[in-house]
Formats: sequence, structure tokens, C-alpha cells
Amino acid sequence: MSKAQIQPLLDKLSTLKPDLYNKDFLLTWAQSQDDLLSVLTVAETLENFYRANIATRAFQGGLAVSNFRDNSTRTRFSFASAASLLGLSVQDLDETKSQVAHGETVRETANMISFVTEVIGIRDDLYVGYGHEYQQAVSDAVQQGFTEGVLPQRPGVINLQCDRDHPTQSMTDLLHLKQTFGSLENLRGKKVAMTWAYSPSYGKPLSVAQGTIGLLTRFGMDVTLAHPEGYDVMPDIMDTAAQQAKASGGSFKLTHSMDDAFEDADIVYPKSWAPMSIMVERTDLLKSGRGKEVQALEKKAIALNGSHMDWQATEARMARTKAGKGLYMHCLPADITGVSCDQGEVDATVFDRYWRETYHEAEHKLYIIAAMMMLTRFPDAHAVLQGLLDEGRPRRFGQPIR
Amino acid sequence: MSKAQIQPLLDKLSTLKPDLYNKDFLLTWAQSQDDLLSVLTVAETLENFYRANIATRAFQGGLAVSNFRDNSTRTRFSFASAASLLGLSVQDLDETKSQVAHGETVRETANMISFVTEVIGIRDDLYVGYGHEYQQAVSDAVQQGFTEGVLPQRPGVINLQCDRDHPTQSMTDLLHLKQTFGSLENLRGKKVAMTWAYSPSYGKPLSVAQGTIGLLTRFGMDVTLAHPEGYDVMPDIMDTAAQQAKASGGSFKLTHSMDDAFEDADIVYPKSWAPMSIMVERTDLLKSGRGKEVQALEKKAIALNGSHMDWQATEARMARTKAGKGLYMHCLPADITGVSCDQGEVDATVFDRYWRETYHEAEHKLYIIAAMMMLTRFPDAHAVLQGLLDEGRPRRFGQPIR
Amino acid sequence: MSKAQIQPLLDKLSTLKPDLYNKDFLLTWAQSQDDLLSVLTVAETLENFYRANIATRAFQGGLAVSNFRDNSTRTRFSFASAASLLGLSVQDLDETKSQVAHGETVRETANMISFVTEVIGIRDDLYVGYGHEYQQAVSDAVQQGFTEGVLPQRPGVINLQCDRDHPTQSMTDLLHLKQTFGSLENLRGKKVAMTWAYSPSYGKPLSVAQGTIGLLTRFGMDVTLAHPEGYDVMPDIMDTAAQQAKASGGSFKLTHSMDDAFEDADIVYPKSWAPMSIMVERTDLLKSGRGKEVQALEKKAIALNGSHMDWQATEARMARTKAGKGLYMHCLPADITGVSCDQGEVDATVFDRYWRETYHEAEHKLYIIAAMMMLTRFPDAHAVLQGLLDEGRPRRFGQPIR
Repeated sequence: MSKAQIQPLLDKLSTLKPDLYNKDFLLTWAQSQDDLLSVLTVAETLENFYRANIATRAFQGGLAVSNFRDNSTRTRFSFASAASLLGLSVQDLDETKSQVAHGETVRETANMISFVTEVIGIRDDLYVGYGHEYQQAVSDAVQQGFTEGVLPQRPGVINLQCDRDHPTQSMTDLLHLKQTFGSLENLRGKKVAMTWAYSPSYGKPLSVAQGTIGLLTRFGMDVTLAHPEGYDVMPDIMDTAAQQAKASGGSFKLTHSMDDAFEDADIVYPKSWAPMSIMVERTDLLKSGRGKEVQALEKKAIALNGSHMDWQATEARMARTKAGKGLYMHCLPADITGVSCDQGEVDATVFDRYWRETYHEAEHKLYIIAAMMMLTRFPDAHAVLQGLLDEGRPRRFGQPIR
Repeated sequence: MSKAQIQPLLDKLSTLKPDLYNKDFLLTWAQSQDDLLSVLTVAETLENFYRANIATRAFQGGLAVSNFRDNSTRTRFSFASAASLLGLSVQDLDETKSQVAHGETVRETANMISFVTEVIGIRDDLYVGYGHEYQQAVSDAVQQGFTEGVLPQRPGVINLQCDRDHPTQSMTDLLHLKQTFGSLENLRGKKVAMTWAYSPSYGKPLSVAQGTIGLLTRFGMDVTLAHPEGYDVMPDIMDTAAQQAKASGGSFKLTHSMDDAFEDADIVYPKSWAPMSIMVERTDLLKSGRGKEVQALEKKAIALNGSHMDWQATEARMARTKAGKGLYMHCLPADITGVSCDQGEVDATVFDRYWRETYHEAEHKLYIIAAMMMLTRFPDAHAVLQGLLDEGRPRRFGQPIR
Repeated sequence: MSKAQIQPLLDKLSTLKPDLYNKDFLLTWAQSQDDLLSVLTVAETLENFYRANIATRAFQGGLAVSNFRDNSTRTRFSFASAASLLGLSVQDLDETKSQVAHGETVRETANMISFVTEVIGIRDDLYVGYGHEYQQAVSDAVQQGFTEGVLPQRPGVINLQCDRDHPTQSMTDLLHLKQTFGSLENLRGKKVAMTWAYSPSYGKPLSVAQGTIGLLTRFGMDVTLAHPEGYDVMPDIMDTAAQQAKASGGSFKLTHSMDDAFEDADIVYPKSWAPMSIMVERTDLLKSGRGKEVQALEKKAIALNGSHMDWQATEARMARTKAGKGLYMHCLPADITGVSCDQGEVDATVFDRYWRETYHEAEHKLYIIAAMMMLTRFPDAHAVLQGLLDEGRPRRFGQPIR
């Protein structure tokens, strides 16, 4: 990539009409096609700026607040990387070190952290039925603060994974597919299998699976969701996927056979998640103060997983994919058989054949997040990027623009 | 606010003679009137810069060190926001992750963290008789390091709340009053009631009450401190308040009736704190390794609070204020009846009528801190601000200066 | 120091041929003389930039990742200070808050945190036989990622202390000696005593002692290592020191008498460390899940220390040094008798006579780290520094370049 590739991206961006300024990015299916295309295009532009050694400090100070209610390495670093490249300082809202727990309202906390804040990134993926609601409550709070004149600007709330969607991941994956297959148009008719896979661990969120079917069905792809019986995802997102597939000229189907899903697939995405019923039960236990019963539930869940150990992305299964060369995808970290666990989601040889691809896939996330930051915070991101390009300031002092 | 409002502020600033360069900001009553007016004026100027979209990166790198010995959300974010807008990187001195506990002297730690440090912000409000002393010891240490040529610059120590004063809060409150009533001159003769209020929690610092009476008595206001018997604040600060009131043409009195304090008040500030005697006892227990006895003490304190449950900012009490429209103030978070607790400092309807005002109040803190940073670190803050104004660099790239 | 002193340093730098670009800084003895001289010269240049008020933001955004597997204040602040002055954002890899523990490979973690990362600083000094290996594994991982096109740039890995070496400390100490004695040439023939000293604590790493003998033997100094029997350091590093001393025209010897080491010494460095045999035993216990037995081992180690309580840098011993005025050095914090412990490494009066010197010594570390950052990340650090000098942007806005 280089500077030469930037102008065509900016030209394309100028034809899009996103409606993200002073808004949030919470669920892909709540966003227009132009919103999605703008995020992809800005992300690709920023990737090219980075490789061309052009600085992208769109802000001279201001905060990017992160609020991780679950562990994170990749997304945490992606968020921090995006903020740094754009000129924002990261401030983490660590609820264990704050007064947030003392009955303070979401309205108050959200406003208190937002006086010079451009974006608030939230991960809240553990509690089914609560994660998205919390993010929406934060959004409502900063919107109210802005409308009432309490906040001088309206921070964009970015979903860094909730119980329903994981849009920075699914958009990352979409950008990976676009670059791998050459264009979004080329994805049309491609068969992608989002499938459950065995893991010895327990309680992984459903949002990657849901986010994937909720996004890829919009691009004319033939999307198959595969999982053992009992590992259903949220029914309304199934409906959304089906409707979107129909509208986009693609298809969406469910199967309970991993082999069936892999058959002739252009792309496979084998990834474990917890059965929603168990996640709901767990949420209820935790919310009702019966946290001690969670351990027993987890044992039950792991045992349940154990009855589906054949759901692995083995070499044999990979051979079933299109010409035996289907693209393996994963949001990472994968449970790799013989590497990170005895038996897991994927054979070590399969993973190792695709490690470069999955790492490239992961790289996009920081630019996807940066794109969401720019589009929610600038009325005309195209103009800002064009201005940065024209200025052509080297990110590394004294080094050439490439 | 806008760019047009900045020049008059700068003109006013040029007439003041602060003596804060290479000094600290620990206690308002140790500072001259010009120091206070300068902090207010720089803070207002920086607020206007922000709203006008003018960058305020007075530093190209360097550290702002925070040292929170008690939990904090608001002040932590204010400190980080101020640092970010001025171009400093925040580095938190987390004593649990450092070697500070191993008998290292304050002189050493203070110098070790200060080689490129512009400001050190400290919260140490839990131990009566120790918080201010610690901050003073850090100040002495960096002064010695600077004088002896060990430090190339002299970091300003900023009190982010100690056992005696909470100057970033009280100055924040003063700026809120100035903007609400139009000018400092307009505060003259206004009746302000700093009153204790019931809270089901225990152990809140005294420094907000002390900081308030220690500051507002300097501006010709009629200041009433109200609390149940036994909830005295530090006697020397009472004396200071009385002397200052006399000197400024205002008044200062103590009452044990909340109703009396609210009567005809222009401003009420109902806020819980722990009785000093209990705080002293608690400090002694903790410092002498008898931490286990603290729990019993806390029960006693909460029970004591319980005998003053009628000390609440109810609608009935608010009706007693000037024309029933006295300004409600709080440093936040408030204990709101029926919201954050069963019974607390303030009725939910009262709080809700004033939430915008209390949030606006809170916004000032980041600018007050930024002003303290600038005034302790630049010999002529006016010149720096004028230079930044003349340069007129947009904080948000490519967006208009307003 | 001032701007006038910078040009001669840059002129000298232009004559050196370091080979650090796209490499790491892990062990001083793996680096060429020009590498070491370049780090010293860039560090001194950056110190002068700071004092001259010239900004050194060589990067417009990007990450400096820290990974502290042991506590740290000094090195943490030095790393953060260096990053801030160069324009990088620090992101800490806190393995307790990440998914690193879940069997994720070093290759994966190292790449995931490196997409826009310029440097990765690692402290891993607790486990003998593992610290350096881990740092090397991270280096191999990012090298592989870069070679395979996964990473757009190759982060430099900087050893912030491992089980073998502590190069940011030893280079700091060398710069301190250079400035104290006027030049590196002046160090030739100077007698330096790196000696064990008594401490009531246990388990200090060996890497300061090893790093010191592994570096100073390269500059024609007469280096004595002194310790009680049983407190050996790693034998291969002893060999390296001996070979280097021979090659540089200096000498290297071992003694078991502290008096002998102090006799006529120009420089003394009394510093406790744990016996390697105990460190190995401890490492084995921890790695084999027998952590509970560590406490017993620690008792044994402390008792062992206790039989060498006479190994203290007393006034009497200091009197034995060259004209009674040998330079006292320490990496800090020292165990000071009567200050940080009852009996420790050094008399309080000795420490107090040299506190300014030890603090000055400590200051260099941030510039040594910054120099390693610049040299591993720019193909021609000289050109970058010359460019920054020519630009002459004030670090503090509107203040004069001195």
C-alpha cells in the first residue's frame, strides 16, 4: 500500500452519505449501507496513511474513554492504537477504582467522563440482555447531556462487544474478506460457514457468531450458521440475518452439521460459544446474587460442550471446503488442538497454514475503530482525511512519505 | 462561548500578578487573591479555547503524574483531561505496583518520578493529620531536588483533595458561582449554606466543607456552616474562615440547624461528612495496625449518622431558600433518596431539578486543574495563552475556529 | 547544558556506525562498541534537547508497549517519560487483565500488540533461565511477523531487566560515570568495585551485578566483583567479563572480601542480590507449581544473608576508597541503615553524602531508553536529531530555546 492508493479511496468516500456524525456505532444492523461502506473506506484509507508514513492526528488532545467490563488484549490494544494515531489520550474507566459502584446513575457517570471526550468504547459482553442495554443507556445519557447543553460535544459510543453484536470484529472480518477477495462485489455468492466449534472452556460470548451472520448477509453472500442443537443464537438476530440475506440477494440457512457447513465453503469461521440458555441462566444467577451456583453451571456447560467434541476444524473437514482451500477465519485467540489445549476449535496444522491470514485479519480492527471514531466525530471525514493527505506530515519525523 | 470572549479574559489576566510559577497549589488560604483570580481566569479562558476549537497544547511531551491514595472518577478524569488538552502524558503512581512501600523515602520517590514531570497531582484524604503533610513533603522533596540541581524543572504539586482542603473542588464551585451569578462582585452579600447532610455511608472526607468555607469567605459572601453537634470541622479552618469573612466584608457563622441555614439562602451545599473525632480515631487505628477495629468504628459512625436522618435537602427545605429558588450545589456523586440509597442527602426531585447545574459545576474542574498546571509551570501564562490564541490551531483538524 | 552543546554530540554521532535499526537491545555484550557509543551519545543529546527546551517528538502517534512481569517505579516512569518525549503513547500489557494466560502463544500475543507499535519494553527478572528467553521469544515473534508481512514495522524489543542483564541500568550507570569523570577515555584504569551488600530482604535479581561487570569491563576499567561465597553470579557472564577486560586493556577479578574490593576504589557499587542457587531453586518451585514451598526457601535465604551482615557500605569502608572519596553508586532504591531498614546495604551518612549523585545517575535512564527507542526505530537517528534541532520547536510553548 502507499500514498498512491489513498486518493481513489478518498474519491470513493466522497460519494458516500454516512449518517454517523454525533451518533454511535452499536449494532451493524442498525446502520445504513453507506455507514458501513464509509467505515470500511475510512479504515482502509487510514491503513494506507499508516503505511505511507502520513500522520493522522485529527485531534490535538481530548479523551478516548474505554470501559472494559470483560478482559481484553486485542480490542484494548486496537482501541489504544486508534486513539494514539488520531491524537487522543486513552483514559480507562476502571469501575473497581471509581465511585461508580456506589449507586451512581449511568446518566451521571457518562456525563462526568465526557467533558472533553470524543469517544467512549465499551465492552460488556458477559450478561445476556444487559450489555447492549448498558451501551444504549450510556448513549442516551451523553445524548441528553449534549442536548441539554451540559456537554460541549457529543461523544460517540462504540460497541467493543456486547451480548448482541461485536461490530468492530465483524467489520474487521468484512474488511479482511474484501481485501482477500478483491472487492465487496466479489463476495456475492461466496459461501461462508459461521460454525460453532468445540472448546474445553466455557462461557464465550455469542456476539461473534451473531455479529457475523448479522453483517455478512448484507453483502449477497451465502451464509450458513452451523451449531449443535441447543447452541442457538438470539432468534431476532436469526430473523434479521434471514431478511437481510433475502434483500441482498444472498441466502441464510441453519444446519446442525459441521460437515454440511464446510462442504464447498469459500470461507469457514469455526468458533466456540456458550449455549444462550446457559448464558441466560448464568446472567440470572449473577444478577440475583447467586454467584456461587455459577460454578456448577459452568461444569454442566463444559460437560455439554464435551458431547460435541467432533465439532473441530480438522484437516479432514478443511478438505471439504472449496477446492480444499477455503479461507479459515478466526477472531483470535483460537483454541488450537495441542497448542493452547488438548482438543479445541482447530487443528494445529490448519491454524498454522492460516496464521498470517488471521493476524492480518486482526490488524484491521484498530483501523475500523479509528474509522468509527472519525465518522462519529467529524461531520465530513472525507474533508479531514483529504486535508491530512494534503498536509502530508510524516508520522515518523524526517522519514519519506511513501 | 467563543473566540470573541477570550480576548477580554486575557486582558484581565494581564492585570493580575500571580505568584504560582515554580510553586504548588495545596490550600486556597495559602494563596493570594491574585493567585485565585488568575486560576479562575485561566480556567475560563481554557474553557473558551475548547469551545472555540482552539488547541491548547502548551507542552510537546512531558508527564503529569497522578497519585490517588483514594478512589476517584471525577477528579481522575479531570486530571487526565487537563493533561491531554495541554499536551502532557498522564502517568499514575500506583503504589501497589511500585517499590514505594519498601521504606523508600518521599524525597527519593518524588524525585524519581519527576525528571520530565510538570505536575504531580495527589489525592490523600483518608487520614486526618497526614494528607496535607504528605503533599507538603512531596513539595519539599521536589523543591529540594530542583534547588540542588537534581531536577531540571520544578514540578508543581496540585492538591487533588487532602484531609484539610479540596481546592480543585472549591475553585470549581467558585467558578460555577461566578458564572451563575454573573461575576465575583455579584457574590458579595449572597447567603451560602454549607451544610452537613445525612448519608447512610460513612467516612466521607471533611475537605469539601472545609474547602468551601475556607474559600467563599474571601469573596464577601455570608457563609453559614451547618452541622449536627459532634460533626465539627477542623477548628483552625473555622478560624481562618471567620477572619477571611471579616476581611472581605462578608460574614461567617455556625449553626446546628439545617432549617436555619437554608432560610433565605441564595445557595445551599448539602453534603455529608464524617465527624472529625471518628476520622481521627480511624486514622489512629489504621496507623497503629489495628485495622480490624475499623469495622466496629464504622458501625458506630453509621449509627451516629442515623440519629440525624432529618438532615436532608428536602423539597420543604428548598422552599425556605431565597424565593424558594436557592441554587443547589454538590460536588457529586450525591446520595439521592430513592435513587442511590433509601434515604440520603437530597430528595430525588430536588436533585433532578438541578442536575444540569451540578453537571456544569463539575465540568469546570478539568479547567481549574489545567489552569493550576499552566500557572505553576509557566512564568507568564498570559503570554502563553495569547500565543496559542494568535496561533489559532484547531483542536479538531480542519474544523472552524468559532 | 544547552543548545550549544548539542552540535558537537551530533557531529560525534555522525561518525558512529550503529547496527540497531530494526533490531533489539537485550544484552549489552551482544552489541557492538558503536552500538553502545551511539546509545550514550543519543541519550546525552536528548538530555541536552530537554534542557534546551527543544521538542523531541520524533513520532506523531504510535505505541510504546510495556510489559512488567515484576514491580517497577523507576523503570516504569523512565519508559513512560521516554515515550512521552518522543511522541509515543504508552500501553501496558497487563497480563492479569488480558487473555494472555489462556494458552495463547508468544507469537500471537507479540504480533497482536504490535500493529502500530514502535517498541516493546519488557521486565522479566524473577525467573532464572526464563527472563531473557521470553524477551528473545518476543523478539523472534515480531521479527517473524515483520518478515512475513504481518507487521508493517518491526518493533524494537528493549530489555527493561531480565535474569541475565539490566542494560538500561548499566548504560545509565556508564553515562553517569562518563559525565562524572569527564569522558569514557578517563574511565580507563579506574578501579570499580561491584560488590554484594547485606539486605534484610530477599530475592533481588542478579542482573544489576551481571550487567555492571558485563559492561564496564569493555572500557578498560579495573573491575572487581565482590561477594560472599555462595553468592555467585552466572558463570558465563563471569567469562564474558574476563574476556572483555582482557580485550579492552582493563582487568577483572573476583574477591570474597568487601574490604579488599573497596581498597583504593575510584567507584563502589554495593548492592544486594540473591544467591543464584536460591534463585534457581525458587524458579523451579514456582514453575513446578510448588509455590507454597517458596516461603520456607525465602526464610532460608534471609537467614543466609544474615550471616553476612558485615557486608555494608559503612563510613569505615568508604574511607578505604581512593583518597576516601570513591564515588558511591546505586541503582536505587538502596536499603539504607536506619532509614529504610534497621541494617542494610549502606550507612545513612554515606547515602546522604551521595544522594544527589545517585539521583543524577537515575535521571539518565529515561534518556538511555529514549535513545534505544530512536536507534532501533530510525535508520539514521543522527539525521532525525539534526532535523529536530534545525526545526527548534520549543517543548514548552513560547518559552525560549536555551
